[in-house]
Amino acid sequence: MKIEIITIGDEILIGQIVDTNSAAMSKLLNENGFSVKKIVSIADNANEIKQSVDAAFAEVDVVLLTGGLGPTNDDITKKTLCDYFGTKLVFNQQVYDKLEKHLQAINLPMNDMNKSQAYLPEIATIIENEVGTAQNMLFEKDGKILISMPGVPFEMKHAMPKVIDFLNEKFEKKENFTRHFLVYGIPESVLATRLKDWEGALPADFHLAYLPSFGIVKLRLSTDENNENNQQRMAVICEKLRALLGKAIVAEEDITMEELVGRMLKEKNMTLAVAESCTGGKIAHKITSVPGSSAYFKGGVVAYTNSVKEEVLNVSAFDIDEYGVVSIPIVEQMAQGVLELTEADIAVATSGVAGPTSNEKEKEVGTVCIAVATAESVMAQQFKFGNQRDKNIERACLAALVMLKDAIG
Amino acid sequence: MKIEIITIGDEILIGQIVDTNSAAMSKLLNENGFSVKKIVSIADNANEIKQSVDAAFAEVDVVLLTGGLGPTNDDITKKTLCDYFGTKLVFNQQVYDKLEKHLQAINLPMNDMNKSQAYLPEIATIIENEVGTAQNMLFEKDGKILISMPGVPFEMKHAMPKVIDFLNEKFEKKENFTRHFLVYGIPESVLATRLKDWEGALPADFHLAYLPSFGIVKLRLSTDENNENNQQRMAVICEKLRALLGKAIVAEEDITMEELVGRMLKEKNMTLAVAESCTGGKIAHKITSVPGSSAYFKGGVVAYTNSVKEEVLNVSAFDIDEYGVVSIPIVEQMAQGVLELTEADIAVATSGVAGPTSNEKEKEVGTVCIAVATAESVMAQQFKFGNQRDKNIERACLAALVMLKDAIG
Repeated sequence: MKIEIITIGDEILIGQIVDTNSAAMSKLLNENGFSVKKIVSIADNANEIKQSVDAAFAEVDVVLLTGGLGPTNDDITKKTLCDYFGTKLVFNQQVYDKLEKHLQAINLPMNDMNKSQAYLPEIATIIENEVGTAQNMLFEKDGKILISMPGVPFEMKHAMPKVIDFLNEKFEKKENFTRHFLVYGIPESVLATRLKDWEGALPADFHLAYLPSFGIVKLRLSTDENNENNQQRMAVICEKLRALLGKAIVAEEDITMEELVGRMLKEKNMTLAVAESCTGGKIAHKITSVPGSSAYFKGGVVAYTNSVKEEVLNVSAFDIDEYGVVSIPIVEQMAQGVLELTEADIAVATSGVAGPTSNEKEKEVGTVCIAVATAESVMAQQFKFGNQRDKNIERACLAALVMLKDAIG
Repeated sequence: MKIEIITIGDEILIGQIVDTNSAAMSKLLNENGFSVKKIVSIADNANEIKQSVDAAFAEVDVVLLTGGLGPTNDDITKKTLCDYFGTKLVFNQQVYDKLEKHLQAINLPMNDMNKSQAYLPEIATIIENEVGTAQNMLFEKDGKILISMPGVPFEMKHAMPKVIDFLNEKFEKKENFTRHFLVYGIPESVLATRLKDWEGALPADFHLAYLPSFGIVKLRLSTDENNENNQQRMAVICEKLRALLGKAIVAEEDITMEELVGRMLKEKNMTLAVAESCTGGKIAHKITSVPGSSAYFKGGVVAYTNSVKEEVLNVSAFDIDEYGVVSIPIVEQMAQGVLELTEADIAVATSGVAGPTSNEKEKEVGTVCIAVATAESVMAQQFKFGNQRDKNIERACLAALVMLKDAIG
């Protein structure tokens, strides 16, 4: 059974928003053993919607559709689907009552706009939206299924578990069998050369994908079925990969570095602090984006100016003059300074030139120094990244997290 | 002239990465007056690629394609396009020489993997990739155009200006005429009711879109051509909108709040500091993601634990006991504390329960207090957001930026 995702919205086609819905849906479907064949984004236009659903039904059994269900006039999906499936809107008292309750709870009035959300296609099965006013609608016709969900990511994510329950009941599926390896510090082309013979010897039913991103290459090794034979073959293949890559493998799961570092800190009962200059708070943001991070994250200082480095982190003004603010001695002092200030067990500090221009006379754009300090030791490293601000910030965060991981051990 | 974007990659269909390329390309194309009709994401599979290009050429004149050009074996786009256009790979000495130089500059060896990047389709026009090893390739056939770019976002973004130059020379185009309004603090359905009559009276050639996101609704008002008549009609329409929404309009351009706040700080020659608890560094990260932010951002403190609040920001431990750490008095003290610590002109502070669970006995998940302080005054507000961690952090950042904007004036 194959699935196509269609996301609807002019705002996607003019690039005003990034379509994160299709990725979130694909991830959930994949984790539950369903395959997405294609993702299509189209305009808020009745003809486009009808044509795309037609084209999808020619290739797949199930279409998941998001967008165009809001109360405002640029949302036309509901009417178009009524047309497409030859049905009409009817008032749904049950949905209306729940809508009224929902609006009361968030202090909003019931107006005509909201009331229109209780008019729903007669033949559709309604999957309740507990977190918004636009309902999820399930259509079945000639053995094909279409499920329409709101485009608001939060509401779509609430609907998806019910959608997956429905698909689980309706279809038998194959369970994918997958292994992930995060490889740090080896560029994709060098990695591919090093893995060439190993990759060439992979069985035909094993598939390898390289997913490079900011200094980490994620290797995804997959095969169709999770059975004993595949498990044994996978184990042998993975063992050879480990022998080839050694310590460059920083994790053997599909995990973010901030989740990994967080888990290690928790296991070792350690607390963390940060002192960020060029990364400007992004390391702290990554760390605190993980639920439960308050158990191990104390906080830290965003020391964007020299005065904050000197006065809050106790960095030597003399050393800033002597070595420059983007230097090993300064970043070491920053890490030690924030360690002392917060009484954390381990601290990481960054100082660099994110770009696009450099005020540092002697440092090029992309130069970043990172230090990790504990009560016993401090170690630091200088990196040279590229010339793009966003990318440099992201790569510095990643390098800092990898250094932290190594130091936590 | 219409364009279709095709992004290639198994990793997109299993939701392992979000396809940001298509949004970035659509945005650039739209800004340059080109319309994207459809965005399609497909697997690394030769048949899928050929079928999708066929289907696209049936509807549009230009196909922009990203992905599947890397040096590794899961990248098959180049071979497939050779098949599709009936051509073969030939060695390109010029590309090889540049490749060699490029690799030397980043200290990588020339290996077979990289050398294969100099083998390119005989009939394709090569658009040089100055920041990577996979070349951009332009195919023309029967009046249709296909341009293939690497899937690495950074490399694609480098290629796009040249792609747009090419399209500009090749096609006449209509210039879109668009106005944006950022509306804060009015939920979409309430906004739609308030704008109902105004929206109903819009001329048929004016299109309105509602783009809601975390407490801000972006209104996009557009019409096809930028001529005098449309300018006059647009001015009248916008004037009426302003009368209806008043101060709820926080900006009249397609700008982020951190860019807007940054520009205002720069204009007023003021410096900013932050003291973040529940937002965990994300406000600082947003502020510092704007190039040139070091001109007005001093830094701040991520005060995740009470001890950091007390010892670094000078918050009263007695008051934390008395009022709870998520409270107006505490967040006011945090803002004043960081103002003093950093000697900034204005500071913003956050304290709240991001979720998914609450340790604060008396505060629900989603409760956030935010304060803005200057040397003369401090003001604070308590918000109640939802129950999703990411969303609460994002909405708290936005509310903080809006409060900052109002305070800067």
